[in-house]
Amino acid sequence: MSNICEILSVGTELLLGDIVNTDTAFIAGRLAALGFPSYRQTVVGDNDGRLAEAIREGFSRADILILTGGLGPTCDDITKKSVAEYFGVPLVMDEDARADIESYFRETGRVMTENNLLQALVPEGSHVFPNRWGSAPGIAITKGEKTAVLLPGPPSECEPMFAEEVEPWLAKRSGCTLFSLNLHLYDIGESRAESILKPIMETSANPSVAPYACEHEVRIRITARGETEEECRRMCREMAEKVLATEVGPYCYTESVTVWESKNAIVLKMIEALRAKKYTLALAESCTGGMLGSRIADIPGVSDILLGGVVAYDNRVKEQLLGVPREILEQYGAVSEECAAAMAEGARKITGADMAVSITGIAGPGGGTEEKPVGTVCFAVSDHCGTVTATVRFNRKADRSKVRRLSIARAMMMVIRRAMGVL
Amino acid sequence: MSNICEILSVGTELLLGDIVNTDTAFIAGRLAALGFPSYRQTVVGDNDGRLAEAIREGFSRADILILTGGLGPTCDDITKKSVAEYFGVPLVMDEDARADIESYFRETGRVMTENNLLQALVPEGSHVFPNRWGSAPGIAITKGEKTAVLLPGPPSECEPMFAEEVEPWLAKRSGCTLFSLNLHLYDIGESRAESILKPIMETSANPSVAPYACEHEVRIRITARGETEEECRRMCREMAEKVLATEVGPYCYTESVTVWESKNAIVLKMIEALRAKKYTLALAESCTGGMLGSRIADIPGVSDILLGGVVAYDNRVKEQLLGVPREILEQYGAVSEECAAAMAEGARKITGADMAVSITGIAGPGGGTEEKPVGTVCFAVSDHCGTVTATVRFNRKADRSKVRRLSIARAMMMVIRRAMGVL
Repeated sequence: MSNICEILSVGTELLLGDIVNTDTAFIAGRLAALGFPSYRQTVVGDNDGRLAEAIREGFSRADILILTGGLGPTCDDITKKSVAEYFGVPLVMDEDARADIESYFRETGRVMTENNLLQALVPEGSHVFPNRWGSAPGIAITKGEKTAVLLPGPPSECEPMFAEEVEPWLAKRSGCTLFSLNLHLYDIGESRAESILKPIMETSANPSVAPYACEHEVRIRITARGETEEECRRMCREMAEKVLATEVGPYCYTESVTVWESKNAIVLKMIEALRAKKYTLALAESCTGGMLGSRIADIPGVSDILLGGVVAYDNRVKEQLLGVPREILEQYGAVSEECAAAMAEGARKITGADMAVSITGIAGPGGGTEEKPVGTVCFAVSDHCGTVTATVRFNRKADRSKVRRLSIARAMMMVIRRAMGVL
Repeated sequence: MSNICEILSVGTELLLGDIVNTDTAFIAGRLAALGFPSYRQTVVGDNDGRLAEAIREGFSRADILILTGGLGPTCDDITKKSVAEYFGVPLVMDEDARADIESYFRETGRVMTENNLLQALVPEGSHVFPNRWGSAPGIAITKGEKTAVLLPGPPSECEPMFAEEVEPWLAKRSGCTLFSLNLHLYDIGESRAESILKPIMETSANPSVAPYACEHEVRIRITARGETEEECRRMCREMAEKVLATEVGPYCYTESVTVWESKNAIVLKMIEALRAKKYTLALAESCTGGMLGSRIADIPGVSDILLGGVVAYDNRVKEQLLGVPREILEQYGAVSEECAAAMAEGARKITGADMAVSITGIAGPGGGTEEKPVGTVCFAVSDHCGTVTATVRFNRKADRSKVRRLSIARAMMMVIRRAMGVL
């Protein structure tokens, strides 16, 4: 019995482009983290024949088929019927699911129709996942080597049900527990990280070690398979130390476990580093126009560290609000380390923050010169010990939005390093 | 020759759940609007064998296969090779595409490697779609009844290339021209717009009229099919006037044609309204933390209208930089129309801008009270004629990011209305 999975989404609204298939991205990410290989994703509409064909094809390649959508109470909702037919079993009433549905309607004060009880019909022999986020229960059914897992389509039900009910069930099925740890690397490219880690990657299957290139960083994902979470955590830790002892070690700025931590790694690390010093932060943004402030404010509960700052898009604002001397603007220009330093120092002064960071650059597509091409961005971090500046030329793609996103990552990394005393 | 389409996305990052398949949703929506039926969507990884199998299977069901991704210059990028093999033709250098790529690198100042020129290789006999948004050109190749259309994976290239290059090409293939016009409505719900427009929608097949609910607005998409673009434009215009003459008319704040215009409709309209008045704009943002400034700065060439502003996350910054009187903060709180007014007036004063807009609210998840629940946001717009304030309670979902996104849309709409003299 292999652990090869496929995801099959059922819904005409996906075929019409009315909704984006976030369920599949979510499940795919979790499957990858769990170490379940998956080579294909399919979407079909609410059509018996085409769904039956997709189920047969899916099972010809994979042993686990994860189906989303089509569990609702209307006649469009055909997933259970098609799966039951594939397995050659009837649909039967699941009394627990029926009681769950009845209490869901009672608690939410909605009127239940006979149709709603159809949601408690499951293929005979199914394992039922209770739905604490909506009404249609999830279902898993196994026959021989083939397992179908059926999940409701709405992301607000599908995602938590997968994470909280299906994952432990899949891990138990595979007779083990899985755990992943991410190492976040900055200032190193994927190919260099990969070549350094190749000896480890090639000799280690469990835990597995794999690099992922993201826009502004490289992540090393370490996934262990074991009997208990404790054991897996220990295995991941040992492997992490092995990875950190290589030449990639100095590039690692933080670690993460959950999806949310991983997505927000750099801003969370910055907040942590500032909190450790009890530092408040102020911002002075030119080409990013407020994106750095927005990124930080996206994390709840940051009012202890984020004071605010100045969006100095125009030079007049740099002069008048941040007190950048006109001579600096005239002699070095707005995109210069001298200007960045004056911006950060000004932001710190006018807000009273312990630390300030500034960004001023040419995001493009226009405004570039021979000496300062599009993608040239200057940074400064200032605190009571002084001011540090840097210039970066982002040249991978002269895309305005990307230059700005890479710039705020660079600025946050400078704050982290400064707060940790390594810049 | 049928017009049945399938979308086949190529990318291991999709299988791993690292990115969401927005390309497919976009293309599916456009195909549906164009009247091309589509019954399946598939994702495979960067794997020769599995891609070849998916291409064969796709063409066993459909006549038009739209492939996204895998057109880059690395050895992972296998889509062209697999399609060429399916059609039994070699890859040949397309001289126009080669010249395009060379000039793309020259203009963006990036260093071109030999690898990049691989992007100019196309299956022999292909039609090439120029890529004005990146480097890899799009490709269409037809043999017998089967057509493959290959598009780059990055949404910033895939979406406009599909809308502006592939759609007219598909329309020509089907013997006609297509043209779409979007009407952007604010402050009206999708169901209300739909019920008002139902009589028109039901009686008009060409041009077709369809509403789309977006996060902060409703778009009415009018698509005409005809012999020439001129004819289609005229048909769309007539239908637009018919739509605007209904009760939805007063809710329409702008129109758009291209994807980029449609996505940026509100910020583009705001820039246009300010330019028409020769107004400069300053910002005072609290809960949005700079998101509004960042959204405006995302549009190139806005330095004539955007001066900058203050991110006043902390009340000290509201007081010290924006000059919000402490009594206002103590008596009414930071989330009040009084505070919003003082913030906007302060931002205007310290920057010398003609107009200023402010946002202060409770984005959540914490910080809500009985009187001011999460999602309560106050706004003000100030110019030489005075200051107008508003309070909105976004209550659809108490999601922090969404409250912030809806807030900047509301703020921009207030600027538009104020600049146009209707607020």
